[in-house]
Amino acid sequence: MSELEEQGVPKHLTKMSENFDRWYTDVIRMTEMADWSGVRGMMVVRPYGYAMWELIQRAFDDLIKESGHENAYFPLMIPHEYFVKEAEHVEGFAPEVAWVQYAGPKPVLTPPTTWTDAEKRQQEEGWLAQPLVIRPTSETIIGPVMKRYIQSHRDLPQLLNQWCNVLRWEMRTRLFLRTAEFLWQEGHTFHATHQEAGEEVLQILENYREVAEEWLAIPVVKGRKTEVEKFAGAEYTTSIEAMMRDGLALQAGTSHHFGQNFSRAYEIEFSNRENQRELAYTTSWGMSTRMIGGLVMAHGDDSGLVMPPRVAPVQVAIVPIFRDDDSRRTVEEFLAPLTADLKGRVRFKVDRRDDRPGAKFAHWEIRGVPLRLEVGPRDVEAGQVTVVDRLSREKTALPAAGLAERLTAMLEDFHGRLYQRALDFREQHTYRPKSKQELIDIYKQGNGFSWAPFCDRTECELEIKAELGVTTRNQPFKVEGEFGDRCIWCGDPAKTVVIFARSY
Amino acid sequence: MSELEEQGVPKHLTKMSENFDRWYTDVIRMTEMADWSGVRGMMVVRPYGYAMWELIQRAFDDLIKESGHENAYFPLMIPHEYFVKEAEHVEGFAPEVAWVQYAGPKPVLTPPTTWTDAEKRQQEEGWLAQPLVIRPTSETIIGPVMKRYIQSHRDLPQLLNQWCNVLRWEMRTRLFLRTAEFLWQEGHTFHATHQEAGEEVLQILENYREVAEEWLAIPVVKGRKTEVEKFAGAEYTTSIEAMMRDGLALQAGTSHHFGQNFSRAYEIEFSNRENQRELAYTTSWGMSTRMIGGLVMAHGDDSGLVMPPRVAPVQVAIVPIFRDDDSRRTVEEFLAPLTADLKGRVRFKVDRRDDRPGAKFAHWEIRGVPLRLEVGPRDVEAGQVTVVDRLSREKTALPAAGLAERLTAMLEDFHGRLYQRALDFREQHTYRPKSKQELIDIYKQGNGFSWAPFCDRTECELEIKAELGVTTRNQPFKVEGEFGDRCIWCGDPAKTVVIFARSY
Repeated sequence: MSELEEQGVPKHLTKMSENFDRWYTDVIRMTEMADWSGVRGMMVVRPYGYAMWELIQRAFDDLIKESGHENAYFPLMIPHEYFVKEAEHVEGFAPEVAWVQYAGPKPVLTPPTTWTDAEKRQQEEGWLAQPLVIRPTSETIIGPVMKRYIQSHRDLPQLLNQWCNVLRWEMRTRLFLRTAEFLWQEGHTFHATHQEAGEEVLQILENYREVAEEWLAIPVVKGRKTEVEKFAGAEYTTSIEAMMRDGLALQAGTSHHFGQNFSRAYEIEFSNRENQRELAYTTSWGMSTRMIGGLVMAHGDDSGLVMPPRVAPVQVAIVPIFRDDDSRRTVEEFLAPLTADLKGRVRFKVDRRDDRPGAKFAHWEIRGVPLRLEVGPRDVEAGQVTVVDRLSREKTALPAAGLAERLTAMLEDFHGRLYQRALDFREQHTYRPKSKQELIDIYKQGNGFSWAPFCDRTECELEIKAELGVTTRNQPFKVEGEFGDRCIWCGDPAKTVVIFARSY
Repeated sequence: MSELEEQGVPKHLTKMSENFDRWYTDVIRMTEMADWSGVRGMMVVRPYGYAMWELIQRAFDDLIKESGHENAYFPLMIPHEYFVKEAEHVEGFAPEVAWVQYAGPKPVLTPPTTWTDAEKRQQEEGWLAQPLVIRPTSETIIGPVMKRYIQSHRDLPQLLNQWCNVLRWEMRTRLFLRTAEFLWQEGHTFHATHQEAGEEVLQILENYREVAEEWLAIPVVKGRKTEVEKFAGAEYTTSIEAMMRDGLALQAGTSHHFGQNFSRAYEIEFSNRENQRELAYTTSWGMSTRMIGGLVMAHGDDSGLVMPPRVAPVQVAIVPIFRDDDSRRTVEEFLAPLTADLKGRVRFKVDRRDDRPGAKFAHWEIRGVPLRLEVGPRDVEAGQVTVVDRLSREKTALPAAGLAERLTAMLEDFHGRLYQRALDFREQHTYRPKSKQELIDIYKQGNGFSWAPFCDRTECELEIKAELGVTTRNQPFKVEGEFGDRCIWCGDPAKTVVIFARSY
């Protein structure tokens, strides 16, 4: 049995063009980004995937700290009585929460096998009087806590964020995109006016756009969710939506305005400037490890990942090539000053593993490393290195002098080309159907974004979902061109323009 | 009712000298570092406390990455069957774990109130066949996962770390020191030889020392735990131990050698260089938010916190002083170029809140900000600022020119003085009892570290603990001076020299 089979990791990458879903899982497992853990629906984020998350975290964390947000940490567990206070919210999340009802102090080396047995042991052991919910999101624990600290308009705004794990018991799971446990950030802010909260929602949405476009090279559409698609308990939800290379949409970040819904449920009141008691206006917003699934599906190809340079754990892979100890020494001596110069300016790795150069090229190719440097004795003689571009596949010889500057520039250029490619792809797969039949035909034949006028009635939206497997992604803030004034599906007066798509 | 009473946060700080425990909780809540959450035994880490954690994380994360460690993330939940495989380990942790036995998909808005009811609903709803444990530490999930990736000596070493939350159902809780949920890092490494694993254990212990001494200004003693005090399942445990200002010890980081105990339980095998199958040698090591409790108790005084500058979220608090709009403008104009120059070099905050200067001084004093700058019209005239040192209480006038350099130097000096003060305190409270009676007398009268020869028998150690409430902290690696060859307690031949102390 081969090493890879023993590990259960596939040996050969399924082609993206043959089976997108299979390609996706293969590439994530083969590149050692992540894997299934043996715990139902839960994944292991392995170092290569986690390093991407750290770079994404740093980018977003810097943005929100610059605008005065602070990180904090609230409990993993929510008492049942807190959890159920906001009716819409609990209805939305209750189906997928996990409960803790037993905890020490006595060992349960053999936990009760029947509930009758458990009941007997309830008194003498640690069965909890009040069950706890493991957070699927933290509005219902942060509300009751923050209520204590908000008394006056002088205590506002409160701009909090936490990086943490959450749990949603999903039945159909998929690495990074939908797992029972995932990592994310959740921001929770408290304001004295509805308008200020609204500005917060948009500012954060803009930060999400920056992370997606400027760091991950993924073009996104900012807009507002329909009633059906909004967050449970929100007044409205905004999102950024991206297109994957199979034409499906990925919601890559959401920012919600709660109005006074949560502050009413949790009695978060303050004395306003007129010295009257008023309920606070709150928001929340989240972005998760799903972003990593997004960059895989937005940029990958038949050969594996293509990493956006700004979040690539390895931006440049250097493969020394030699036949014997002599040429090895020559190459290493040539490399020493070059790598010293690259340090701190480019994230690079010199691949000194005991393996054939061809195997090393394949190793870095599937991992999507933007630039690969090959350095052999002939390069040394010519005072150059050979650079291979993961996107264009072009091979260029570069002089050793000024290498760091050149590589930095090439990486910036790589980012731009990758973004442009994703944008071109999205435009090629964006439609403006003029009739119901046109809309139906688009999703019979394939996938993509369809911009169309819509009535924004729940009934109509659910019908489309049932018939085409298509949902509204959002109502873009920026609508160019003319659209009819009738809903593309039911013909009633249109209230808005939406993007329809199949989605993850 | 006052604002503070409404919040339940105390108004006046209990003096450290009057009631150390009360002082500790007061100061943490009053400085808005952390608070209880309403969930039994779980705390909220508020922004001021979380910012300290972020600085500690950065310091340690940089150290371990420099030596080739990589971050990853493993599941929160551990299947029961994995959890129980290493006998000693499960015996140690089972008493304090929380179990998840129910999860969606159907809503349990009213969870079963009796176990008979639950049993009835087991079939149609989501009661789990296999109960899950919420990680108290992750050896038992990381082992089974890593087994898949370790086949050959070429796959070793594996040097992993994760930053995460863990749960231990503690009965007696205390902010930061002992909470049902806490944040930490846990490193898990896999090696081809016993010796290499041993070197890893010591290297990480040295990193913990660096964080404690060089970042938190807390002197620590490195050493090896006795059999009684070692980690459940370890071959041996090493630790760093610090002294708090009440003379009690705080274990501030531990690093464990597992030998082949865990790899035997989880079948983590590799082909060695001789092509024979061999069990891997593993280690684990952890440092938690408890460190924050440590810096509070190691440096604080009757007036509140005294922050070690390198992990102080605010190193310099600037309080502008003015009587009217005119003098306000004068002061702000003077400050503008100064703060522009400080940016990125010193973590500072200009306190522009609408409050009296005296209230602001108190605000920053209790928060332990190392340096406070007062800038009033007279300072502006003289082209200077007034600096107040939190530790020495000295007031100095500094010329505005070259302020950033001076402050940086003063912060470095502050670190050194704070470390020296803690070291002096520890030396004043360190004893070398010559007899059992001397040892008894020390802990009748007070607290401190007692270095003494010890037989290292479990029985003897448990007797000391029962009679004096004192445990062995560790067997210091560096023992200076001469000690007798008989156990200080039982008179049997001594095997080692240990530090005795009461501890957190």
